[in-house]
Formats: sequence, structure tokens, C-alpha cells
Amino acid sequence: MKLYDTPMAPNPRRVRIFLAEKGATIPTVDVNLMKGEHRNPEYRALVPNGRVPALVLDDGTVLCESIAICRYLESLYPEPNLMGVDALEIAQIDMWTRRMEFELMMPVASAFRHVHPAAAVLENQFKDFGLSMKKVGEKSYAYLDKILADQPYIAGDRYTIADISAICTVQFGAAVSDIHVTEALPHLKRWADEVGARPAVKSSLKSAA
Amino acid sequence: MKLYDTPMAPNPRRVRIFLAEKGATIPTVDVNLMKGEHRNPEYRALVPNGRVPALVLDDGTVLCESIAICRYLESLYPEPNLMGVDALEIAQIDMWTRRMEFELMMPVASAFRHVHPAAAVLENQFKDFGLSMKKVGEKSYAYLDKILADQPYIAGDRYTIADISAICTVQFGAAVSDIHVTEALPHLKRWADEVGARPAVKSSLKSAA
Repeated sequence: MKLYDTPMAPNPRRVRIFLAEKGATIPTVDVNLMKGEHRNPEYRALVPNGRVPALVLDDGTVLCESIAICRYLESLYPEPNLMGVDALEIAQIDMWTRRMEFELMMPVASAFRHVHPAAAVLENQFKDFGLSMKKVGEKSYAYLDKILADQPYIAGDRYTIADISAICTVQFGAAVSDIHVTEALPHLKRWADEVGARPAVKSSLKSAA
Repeated sequence: MKLYDTPMAPNPRRVRIFLAEKGATIPTVDVNLMKGEHRNPEYRALVPNGRVPALVLDDGTVLCESIAICRYLESLYPEPNLMGVDALEIAQIDMWTRRMEFELMMPVASAFRHVHPAAAVLENQFKDFGLSMKKVGEKSYAYLDKILADQPYIAGDRYTIADISAICTVQFGAAVSDIHVTEALPHLKRWADEVGARPAVKSSLKSAA
């Protein structure tokens, strides 16, 4: 089993945190997106759609999509549970993970991809759209602040993969999308400080090569 | 248990097809998005984020996000299996479902939301961005045509929720995003004709009130 990873993007960081929380280690290869290594024929031969992260199993089976990779890893490394213990909790955590992706990660990533000069190599940029996504992201932060006024973690009483998805987004947003957890969002700030201080979250930050 | 549904959108249609494939029936209430019924205080009291579809359980627990709803329904109605029988297949089907969402549904929906005059009530429209998403969607169709040259269904040998996600997108794209399965895409056409002819898929089409 081998994990193809990339340092700066928030998606593969989710898999790194997930593994670190479980104390699991998998042989990992870094793919440099800015150098276009995901488009190299060698990588495409392994991972036809060129996506990162990708988990290549010993029989050659390729799993892409961070959450699908984590879903498989959860079966290999069940403790601590991060994706639900019964059908209802699994569905609820899936719901919160998806909400973090569609309501938070999508606008925050779009605000980077369509506005930041460094993203011009990755994307046909539409700046006005990107700036509108920044506002959508800020609205989602305010909404999330209200959620976290009533519950300690994104999916409820305990830390799950939904928190991992959200912290990667929030830290990415502060770094490159100019979206910040201000003092006006005390519950989101309390959550971001606590989750951001977890060893698995801190150790998952890689600087770009 | 009660399902809050809406006739025209591709997302809730996935849940209707999923239930029909399983021969399951749940009391359903239609929410008219064009009339803004998802913003009514009565609906917000039940479903705080105003999303449709939503599954409200007998104890008041609310599940949103079509795939999370289906994941829970799969546990209640396990046959026919549509989301995987073991950890690896569950992860693979999750991967394909997510790919259909991010690579197909996202651009096709954006091409509608940012270009179609009828979507102006739902969205701050950026037409150039929408038109670029139409091209991204067309590129995804071509990619999917190659996938379906080698395997009968999206996730491989059998019909799954990934096919349900893709057929809703393809039929939605033809109806409102001006993205079409042309004769130049014979494998995608073969798949769309076959999946589109399934009774559960045909019966899930509701006209808007």
C-alpha cells in the first residue's frame, strides 16, 4: 500500500491527519502539483485521472478522493473511530463532512483558485466569481460559529473526520484565501484553536518543496 | 420518518431513485424551491439549514445531504445493495460517487446556475464562469465515455449509487445546462440509454408543480 500525497493542498492533508490520529504510517510519495508532476506519464500510469491524494493497494487497485480513502483506512485502522460506529452515526458524520465540503471547502477553495495569483497556473480564473465565493465562505463561517455555540465539534459531541475537513479548510483559507476566523466568531475560534492544537493536525503541515 | 423532497433538482431525485430501486416507500412532502418554501419559518423549524432533501426521523433527528440520507437508508433497506458490500467496495463506490459529484454534477449544475435565466432567482450569476463550467462538463462527459468503454457501469461491473448520481446529472444537463450526450460519445450514450430506461429512474421524474 502506498499513498501519493502533496504538501500544500487541503484535501490530502485530511488523509495525513486521519492517519496520524490513528497512529498509522503508510509509505508516502510526494507529488508536486506546481511542477505538474500529477500530469507526468509515470503518475498517470499509476493514477489515470492524475488526482492527488491516491492510495495504491498492493494488488494495484487505486483509490482516489480523500474521504473514500479515509473510509477504507477506517476499516484497516478502526481506532480511534472517526467516521461513525453505527449506520445513523456514519450517515450523520457523512452529512457533516459533506456540508463542510460543499458549504465551506468549496467556496474557500474557489476564493483561492479564482483570485490568488499563484493559482493562475491551475485554473482559468474568474476573479469576480472568486470574490463572491469569498463572501459565501465568510457567511459559512458565521453559520458554523452558531453551530459551534451549541456543540463542541462539527458533528456533535466528539471529534470526527468532519472536524478534520473543516480545520484543513479554515487554515487553508487563512493562508491563501484571505478568509479569517475573527474575534467576532468566538465559538469558531475556540474550536479552531483547540482542533488546531491537536498533535495530528499540527504535524500534518508540510511546507512546499 | 418523513422525506422532504423537491421535484426538479437533481439531488433529491437521487434519493427518490434509490428508494424506488429498493422498492421502499416513505411519506414524502414536496418543497417548492422556486416559491422559496425552503426559506419558510415552518420548514426552517424542522430543517434549520433549509436544505432539500431532508429525512426527518421519528425522534426528530434530521439528516441532510442526499448521499448521507441514502447511506442511512441503505442500512434500513439493504437489498438490492447499491453502496458496497465490504469496506473496499464501499470506499470504491464512494470514490465514484464523489467523482461524479465533483467532476460531473458540479460543472453541470454551475452551467445551469450561472447561465440559465430561470436560475437568476437562486444565484448571483457569473455567466462567463458558467460557460467555462459548461466546457468542463463536456470534458468530463468525454472522459466518462472512455471509462464506460471498458466497464458497463460507473463503478465497474454493477449498477450502484454512482450511476444514480450520474444519470440525474446527465438528464439535468440535457434539460437545462445545454450539455448533451452526443453520438460522438457512444459508450456514455449506451449507458445513459440503459440506465435511463430503468423503471426506478423513469418513475423518479416529477414535473414542477
